[in-house]
Amino acid sequence: MIRSVNWLGDCLQLLDQTKLPAKEAYLTTTDYRVVASAITKMQVRGAPAIGVAAAYGIALGAFEFSNVNLAQFRSHMSVVMKTMAATRPTAKNLFTTIERMESIIQKTSDTCLLKQALIEEAIKIHSEEQSATQIISKLGANLFRDGDTILTHCNAGPLATAGYGTAIGALIEAQRQGKNIRVINTETRPLLQGSRLTAWELKVAGIPFKLITDSMAAYFMSKGSIQAIIVGADRIAKNGDVVNKIGTYMLAVLARENNIPFYVAAPLSTFDYDTPSGEFIPIEERNTTEITEIYGTVMTPEGTEVLNPAFDITPTCYITAIISEKGVAWQGKNSI
Amino acid sequence: MIRSVNWLGDCLQLLDQTKLPAKEAYLTTTDYRVVASAITKMQVRGAPAIGVAAAYGIALGAFEFSNVNLAQFRSHMSVVMKTMAATRPTAKNLFTTIERMESIIQKTSDTCLLKQALIEEAIKIHSEEQSATQIISKLGANLFRDGDTILTHCNAGPLATAGYGTAIGALIEAQRQGKNIRVINTETRPLLQGSRLTAWELKVAGIPFKLITDSMAAYFMSKGSIQAIIVGADRIAKNGDVVNKIGTYMLAVLARENNIPFYVAAPLSTFDYDTPSGEFIPIEERNTTEITEIYGTVMTPEGTEVLNPAFDITPTCYITAIISEKGVAWQGKNSI
Repeated sequence: MIRSVNWLGDCLQLLDQTKLPAKEAYLTTTDYRVVASAITKMQVRGAPAIGVAAAYGIALGAFEFSNVNLAQFRSHMSVVMKTMAATRPTAKNLFTTIERMESIIQKTSDTCLLKQALIEEAIKIHSEEQSATQIISKLGANLFRDGDTILTHCNAGPLATAGYGTAIGALIEAQRQGKNIRVINTETRPLLQGSRLTAWELKVAGIPFKLITDSMAAYFMSKGSIQAIIVGADRIAKNGDVVNKIGTYMLAVLARENNIPFYVAAPLSTFDYDTPSGEFIPIEERNTTEITEIYGTVMTPEGTEVLNPAFDITPTCYITAIISEKGVAWQGKNSI
Repeated sequence: MIRSVNWLGDCLQLLDQTKLPAKEAYLTTTDYRVVASAITKMQVRGAPAIGVAAAYGIALGAFEFSNVNLAQFRSHMSVVMKTMAATRPTAKNLFTTIERMESIIQKTSDTCLLKQALIEEAIKIHSEEQSATQIISKLGANLFRDGDTILTHCNAGPLATAGYGTAIGALIEAQRQGKNIRVINTETRPLLQGSRLTAWELKVAGIPFKLITDSMAAYFMSKGSIQAIIVGADRIAKNGDVVNKIGTYMLAVLARENNIPFYVAAPLSTFDYDTPSGEFIPIEERNTTEITEIYGTVMTPEGTEVLNPAFDITPTCYITAIISEKGVAWQGKNSI
C-alpha cells in the first residue's frame, strides 16, 4: 500500500506529494512546525491525510515540551493547535483531529501521561482512518458494475487518506474483486492532482485510465462514455452539502443532466454536524501563482489578476449517495 | 486594432498566437504550405481567422503556379485546397472559404484572371469578416448592462477573427460605449487560450478581468458573481447546436442551472446549414502531449493515456441567443 503518512515511532515521515510523480521523496521530521508547513504547502494533502498528519504533528508538538508545569504545557499546546488550525481552513478532518487532541489535553493533568496519550490518540486516529477507508472502499466497489467507466476528480486515494483511499479506494477494491472497470480522471487544475497523483495511483494499481482536462468531463458524459462518478470530500455539512475540490459542483450538475449517478465517499471525520449547510463552510483561496505560473513559467500577461478558490460547494440535491464507514446514504432527491 | 492576419500585397503576415503573451512575433510567408502548417499548429487560430488565413493561403497557392494550362492549374489548386482542408476538421469557416475559392476557380478559365480573382476573393472574405464582427460586436454589446460581470471561455476576440472579435468584440464595444463591465475568463486548458490570448486582449483593451481555471466557472455562477456568458463558435448546425472549444457545453448547462443568459456570437461563415445537428459535426482530437506536458515539462506518470477532443457540442436548448451579423436570434426554449 502507498503510505503517504507514516509514524516511525519517534518521528513522522510524509511522502512529499508536490514532487510526484517525477520523484518519490520523503520528508522526515520531529518538528510540528514542519508538519504544519507541509500541510499548507500541500506536501501532504487530502482531507483525511491532513487530519492524520495534523494528529501526529500535535503529538510531536507535545514531545517538544520539556517542562513539567501543566499550565505551561497547556499554553504551549494551545500554540501548537493554533499553528495547526491555521494551515488550511476547509477540510473538516483537520478540525476533527484538533477537537480530539484538545479533549485528550483536557482529560489528564499529568504532562508525561498526556504526551503518551496524545501520541496514542494520533495512532488511533490513523488506524481509524485506515479501517474507515477500507470499509468505504468495499461499500463503494459494490456500486460499480463490470464494464463501467467511472470518472473521478482530483485525488481521493491512498495518498489523500493515509489509508486505503475513498473514491479511488472504491475503484481499487472493485478491480481487486475482479470487476472490469476503466477510469477517466480529470487533471484537476490548478495543482494537477489528477495528472500527477491519481494517474500515479491508478498506474500503481494497474487500473486502465485515460486522463482528460477538467473541461472535457461534460463532453464524455454527454457521449455516454461515463457510467458513474465518484469523488471524495473535504467537508460535508449537516444537510449533506459537499465541499470538495473546485470543479466538483460542475461535475455533479452535469451528472444529473446526463442521468449519471454521482457518488461522494468520505469517512465520518469529514462530516461537520455543526454546520447546517455548505454556504457556511469556509472556502480556501490559494496563491494566484498557482494559476499564472506552471513550474515557474509565467503563462499570463503581466498584471493579470486571478481568483483561486480551492473548493466548491455541491448542494445535496445533486448527490446520488454518500458513502461512509457507516454505510451508503442514498439521497432521496436524486436517486437514479 | 490587433491584426492577427494581415495581407501585405504579395505576402501574408500572421501574428504567431503560440508565442503570446510572452512575445509579439510575426510569421511572414508566400508559401501556402506554411499557412496550412500555421493553421494546424494553431499559430493562427479561431474559426473566422482560420477562414481568412486559409483564403489568403489558397491565393498564395495560385500565385505559386507558373504554367498557363487551365487543367494543370485546376489540378494544382486541387492539391492546395486539399492541403488546406486537411489542417483542422471542425471550424466551418475553413470550409466556407474553400467552397468560395472553389467556386471562383470554376467560374473563370483564364489562369491569370483566376489568380487575380482568388486574391480579390480572399481580400473580400477578410473584409466581410471585419464588417460582420463589427456588427456582431455592436449587437452583442447591447446585451450587457452597466455593472455586469461577464464570463467568457477560450478566445473569441480580434486574434480569433481577423476582425473585431465576436464574444470579446462585444465586450470591447460595451466598454467603448461607456458601460462599466468586468470580465471573468477561463484559462481554457489545454492550450491556455484564455490565460494567454484573452487575458492579453482584455489587457490591451483596458477591460478589468479576473482569470480562473475552467473548473471554477460553475462556482462563480452559483455565487451570483456572473450576470452573462458569451462565447464564440467553431461551427453552428442547422438546428442551432453549437460546436465550440471544449468546456462550452459544461458552461451552458451550468448557466441554465443558475439562470444566467448564455450567448454565442459568430459570423454567418460559421453556420453550417448542411448539417442538421451537432452530433454530425467532426470533433478534432489533438495531440496527447498538449495535456501531459506544459512547455516541455512532463506532468504525468510514464505511459499515461489521454483523451483530447478540442471541441464539444452544446445543444441549442441551452443557448439563450445566437448573435450574427444578421441580428440576434433568441432561442425559444431558453429565453430568460
